[in-house]
Amino acid sequence: MSNSGPAVPVTRVLAVASHVVSGYVGNKIAVFVLQSLGCDVAALNTVQFSNHTGYKQFKGTKVSAQEITDLFDGLKQSYLDDFDMMLSGYIPGAEAVAAVGDIARELKEKSRSTPGSFFWVLDPVMGDNGKLYVAEEVVPAYKSLLQYADLMLPNQFEAEVLSGVQIVDMDSLASAIQALHDTYRIPHIVITSVKFPAPGQPSPQLSVVGSSMSSDGRARLFKIVFPAIDCYFSGTGDMFAALMVVRMREAVTAVPGLGARASWLSGDDTATLDLPLARAAEKVLASMHEVLSRTSEAMKDIVEQTIDGQVGKLDGSEKMGHLVQTKAAELQLVRHPECLRSPTVEFKAKVM
Amino acid sequence: MSNSGPAVPVTRVLAVASHVVSGYVGNKIAVFVLQSLGCDVAALNTVQFSNHTGYKQFKGTKVSAQEITDLFDGLKQSYLDDFDMMLSGYIPGAEAVAAVGDIARELKEKSRSTPGSFFWVLDPVMGDNGKLYVAEEVVPAYKSLLQYADLMLPNQFEAEVLSGVQIVDMDSLASAIQALHDTYRIPHIVITSVKFPAPGQPSPQLSVVGSSMSSDGRARLFKIVFPAIDCYFSGTGDMFAALMVVRMREAVTAVPGLGARASWLSGDDTATLDLPLARAAEKVLASMHEVLSRTSEAMKDIVEQTIDGQVGKLDGSEKMGHLVQTKAAELQLVRHPECLRSPTVEFKAKVM
Repeated sequence: MSNSGPAVPVTRVLAVASHVVSGYVGNKIAVFVLQSLGCDVAALNTVQFSNHTGYKQFKGTKVSAQEITDLFDGLKQSYLDDFDMMLSGYIPGAEAVAAVGDIARELKEKSRSTPGSFFWVLDPVMGDNGKLYVAEEVVPAYKSLLQYADLMLPNQFEAEVLSGVQIVDMDSLASAIQALHDTYRIPHIVITSVKFPAPGQPSPQLSVVGSSMSSDGRARLFKIVFPAIDCYFSGTGDMFAALMVVRMREAVTAVPGLGARASWLSGDDTATLDLPLARAAEKVLASMHEVLSRTSEAMKDIVEQTIDGQVGKLDGSEKMGHLVQTKAAELQLVRHPECLRSPTVEFKAKVM
Repeated sequence: MSNSGPAVPVTRVLAVASHVVSGYVGNKIAVFVLQSLGCDVAALNTVQFSNHTGYKQFKGTKVSAQEITDLFDGLKQSYLDDFDMMLSGYIPGAEAVAAVGDIARELKEKSRSTPGSFFWVLDPVMGDNGKLYVAEEVVPAYKSLLQYADLMLPNQFEAEVLSGVQIVDMDSLASAIQALHDTYRIPHIVITSVKFPAPGQPSPQLSVVGSSMSSDGRARLFKIVFPAIDCYFSGTGDMFAALMVVRMREAVTAVPGLGARASWLSGDDTATLDLPLARAAEKVLASMHEVLSRTSEAMKDIVEQTIDGQVGKLDGSEKMGHLVQTKAAELQLVRHPECLRSPTVEFKAKVM
C-alpha cells in the first residue's frame, strides 16, 4: 500500500482552521490527513486552544484578523503563496472570516488566467443541531464570500442558515441545494450529516447529499446513506473536509482535461454518479466510517486507562465523567493510517 | 509495510516547539514525524510564523510564557496531561524556557513513583556554527533545566556552551559529553552534526556522537559517521529529535524491563553498541539520510516550478534567488513517508 505512492499529484494546500494542543479537531486533524495523503500543507492556525470546546472547558487564545492577514503577507513576500487548493474551517469572528475571504479572493484572482489552477473548499463552520455557535455577524460575513468558493461543505443546519430554506425532508434538502447554487453560483456542494426520522428503520441512518451544478446551474444530486455510530465525536466535519480536498483532487485528476476547467466542473454529459464529487464522497465516507469504528472500539479501554493513570485525582463527579468520555472519543487516526490511504468503499452514491 | 503496525506502543507525546505556516521546521515537522510513526501528539506551539527564519524575512507572533503555562493548565484541568514523553525544541526567550521547564519538572515529579513512565527529550535550541541566535539569558535558563531532562540533543556549538568545553577534536568532544553527564546528571546525550576537518578525506564527513551514562556516571560513547550532503537544510535538528523520540521508545521497548527503569538507563553489563540510544541513532540517521537525499534530488525542479509559477513577480535579484532556493530546500517528507517508517540502516554505530 505504501508503495503505491501518494493519492494526488504534488498539491500545495493552504489550510486555515483552529489548532488544539491535545486531540483531533480543526487543523490538528486536517493537516495530518492532508499530509498523510501526500499534500504539502501550509497550516494557518486561527486559534491555539488546549483542547476542543466539547470538553466544556479550555484555555488558549484566538488569532486576530490582522494576524491572519499578516501571516498571509509573510507567505506572499517569500513566494510561498503558490497554492493549488485552500481549505478553510473554523475562523473566530466576522472580521477574521472577512480576512480569510480576502486571502481566498486574492488567490482566486491570481488564478483567473489558468482555470482550475486554484480550488477553494469552504467549510462554513457556524453551528449545528439548530444552534449557531458563532456570533450572529459571522453569517453575513460567510454569505458575502460563498461566491468565491468552489466547494462548500455545510452541515444540515448551516445549509439552512445560508440558503434560507428549512430542511425537513429530501425535497426541501434538494431545494436548499438548488438555492445555494442559484444564489451564490457555488459549483459544488456537499451537505454532511443529514438526519431525518426514517419510519420503519430500527437504527438511525445518516446521509451525505451532494451536487455539482450543470452548465445552466441545475443541481445534479446524489446521496450516500451510511449507518450512524451511536456516539458524539468531535472533529468529524474537519476530517471529512480534509479528505474531500484530497479525494476531489484525485477524482478530478483521473478525468483528462477536467483539472483545467474552471472550478473542475464536469460537462453536462457526465452522469451524476460519475461526477468526481460523488466518487470523492464515497471514498471519504469509507475512510470516515473506518476511523469512527476504530475510535468507537477503543473508547472503553481509553476510559479505563485514563482512570488508572489519574488515581487520586478523579472524584467520580459528572464533570469528570464527561471529560474522560470526551477524551476517549477523540478520533483514533494516528494508529490507523490505513483507514486514510486505502479504505474499502461500502456505501455507494445513488442518484436522488 | 503499513501492515506491520506502528513502531511504538501507544505513546502520548507533548511536543513543544515553533509552528510555521509554510515549510518544515519545529513542530511543523516534528508533529508529522511523530504522528506518522503512531504517536498521539499534543502540539504546544511556541510561535506561529509564516515561514522559518532562514528565509531572512517572516511574519507572525510569539506565544508568551504565560500563554504556555495557561495551555498546560488547560490540559491538566481536563486530565489531558497523561504524557509518556515530552519533546521540547525552540522556545522564544528565557521566561518561556523557564515555563516549559516547569511543565517538564511537574510531569517528571508526577512520574516519580513509576520509574520510566515519563521521558523528556530536550533539544536546547540556542545557536549553531559558533553563534547564539537566542538572547544571552536563555543559556542559564537552559542550564537550570538540564537536570530534569532524560536525553539532550545539542549540536556541537550548544554542547560547548552548556559544557564549557571547547570542542576541537574527538577527545575534547568526549570531555564535553563527560562534563554534561557530570554537571547535570543527564543520562543520555547525542551531539548532532559534529564536523571536524578530516585530513585526507575528499568530501566532508559528519558524525553524530552519543552516550548513555553508566551507573557511576561514566560516558559510554559511540559515534556514527555519515556523508554530508552539500546543501543547507532547515529543520534537520527538529526532524532528528522527533525521530529520536520514537526510535528510543522503540529500542527501549525491545529490551524486557528497561522501560520500567529510571530514565531507561541500561545496566552496566550492556555493551555500548547494544545501548538503545545507539540503536535508535542508527535508525534515525538512516531516515535523515533518505529524506535529505530525496530533498536534494527534488530541489532543481522546485526552483523551476516556483519561477514558472511566479512569472512577472520575480525580479532576478539576489534576494529572490535566496528565497526560491530556501523554499526548494524545505524537507521533502510528506511524499516520502517510507523514509520514516522503514529506512535502510547503512551507517553503523562504532565504539569511540
